[in-house]
Amino acid sequence: MGRITARTRVTRITLGESSAETTVSRREDVLAVEEPLEIRVGGTSLSITMRTPGHDFDLAAGFLISEGVVAHTGEIAAIRYCAGVNDVPSTGSGRRGENTFNVLDVTLAKGVAAPDPSLERNFYMTSSCGLCGKASIDAVRTASHHANPHDPLVIDASVLASFPDRLRAGQEVFDKTGGLHAAALFDGRTGEMLVLREDVGRHNAVDKVIGWAHGEGLLPLTGMVLQVSGRASFELTQKASMAGIPILAAVSAPSSLAIDLAEESGMTVVGFMRGRSMVVYAGEQRVAVPALAEVAQ
Amino acid sequence: MGRITARTRVTRITLGESSAETTVSRREDVLAVEEPLEIRVGGTSLSITMRTPGHDFDLAAGFLISEGVVAHTGEIAAIRYCAGVNDVPSTGSGRRGENTFNVLDVTLAKGVAAPDPSLERNFYMTSSCGLCGKASIDAVRTASHHANPHDPLVIDASVLASFPDRLRAGQEVFDKTGGLHAAALFDGRTGEMLVLREDVGRHNAVDKVIGWAHGEGLLPLTGMVLQVSGRASFELTQKASMAGIPILAAVSAPSSLAIDLAEESGMTVVGFMRGRSMVVYAGEQRVAVPALAEVAQ
Repeated sequence: MGRITARTRVTRITLGESSAETTVSRREDVLAVEEPLEIRVGGTSLSITMRTPGHDFDLAAGFLISEGVVAHTGEIAAIRYCAGVNDVPSTGSGRRGENTFNVLDVTLAKGVAAPDPSLERNFYMTSSCGLCGKASIDAVRTASHHANPHDPLVIDASVLASFPDRLRAGQEVFDKTGGLHAAALFDGRTGEMLVLREDVGRHNAVDKVIGWAHGEGLLPLTGMVLQVSGRASFELTQKASMAGIPILAAVSAPSSLAIDLAEESGMTVVGFMRGRSMVVYAGEQRVAVPALAEVAQ
Repeated sequence: MGRITARTRVTRITLGESSAETTVSRREDVLAVEEPLEIRVGGTSLSITMRTPGHDFDLAAGFLISEGVVAHTGEIAAIRYCAGVNDVPSTGSGRRGENTFNVLDVTLAKGVAAPDPSLERNFYMTSSCGLCGKASIDAVRTASHHANPHDPLVIDASVLASFPDRLRAGQEVFDKTGGLHAAALFDGRTGEMLVLREDVGRHNAVDKVIGWAHGEGLLPLTGMVLQVSGRASFELTQKASMAGIPILAAVSAPSSLAIDLAEESGMTVVGFMRGRSMVVYAGEQRVAVPALAEVAQ
């Protein structure tokens, strides 16, 4: 498929003891691809998940086994990609009829019961339209009340580099269990940490931070940095965008769709924060390096 | 709330060069709590997420902001826990009327539109009933066709200890991007790796592995070990249980509900696999230490 990885231009910053020892290099980097997959059973939509393309039929079969719809070999009669489903009037993607390979339909064997409607749950997902990454991004852009591509925040790279250690220092529950994601909101102008939340789910930690800010009357979160302990997925980037946060900083790697969304919505995404080094994937105008010694690599 | 962490008895194994240097100690350990939260808006169920209890009202508000339902302070009139909703005839939990603090209802302010039904998606989740962890576990146990609490697999701890490195060595895409979760299926009797899959979502990597095994006619996965690159959540434990896998091995920490499910369904869960050491959280009878030198701690 050739869609498992994607290339992007990044800026790598490594802060030295003095500005003469600081390096800034621009190069190509490789991202893990993230795209929505909609799983239908007998034409009815059952699930949408953000996944890395590839082995999609196995993904659908495994999902149906995990949910108890299918148990034995032979209970799935056929799986096929749906052609011509890219009809998204709400987003106007204008690519009607194109097969994105992001929607598939499972035909169960005769005698296998369809998923029990009483077990279905309504999920609200503006972001994952199940069609293509582009449509997902359009949906977020349309829905966002607070996104501000022109947020004038500029943060010193050395201040940003201090956030992961301060996040880690604030993780009380992680210290005991080793098992929690964390998210914190920093004021990008003062460097102050406003709130930190931990959760087994990284999306929940971010929701708790944004919900706290809402309760404090702080939305939109102009001039703020959202620091997360793990990777930067599309979902986390969406949440930051919806709350008007200009900078998402992640300890680990971002996905392709996270960067696409950041670029479309004028956000800054920083990843691979290790000690005094970091990689800027989008919106590098918001990250300042003092008396910049630029080195091509 | 006192429900952010939970205590459990574990067995820590550290393999030495010889059996005399190998230690096995039993002690109490602390787990991050994971329980389902159902978010309702005006009485209608909108989302169920597995979360760490605490700051639940912030979580609900942040979720509604992320999804574009709410944008400004004052648009949420009230949030309250639902009392007396623990009525689960399908699981027979028999705790009707008890407030589990796992279901909450959001009342939007006058003039704020309810979530657009056209944007709702049907999700199928037997596992996350939104009520309590016990009911979630009952739902998985009832639905599983393959769970086998008496799987006689016994694996040597030194063989198990080799799996994380072999998983990591097989991660082709991670090498390029640093951004992917991995899951692999090992034959617990021979130590052979049968399949490895990578994905931006850990649940997808596991679904791809189980879907592959289904296609190969291998279900139920008696005698197999599912090795995952990250944490062991309830969701991953559920997937292993539904496919009949007796041992789930995770590089990082498990959650409380993952261990509860493993104990209820007779599975083995191993976590914190670092070099030659590991922690067995449930089902320790399946992990063998040669000429066992037991040391109390």
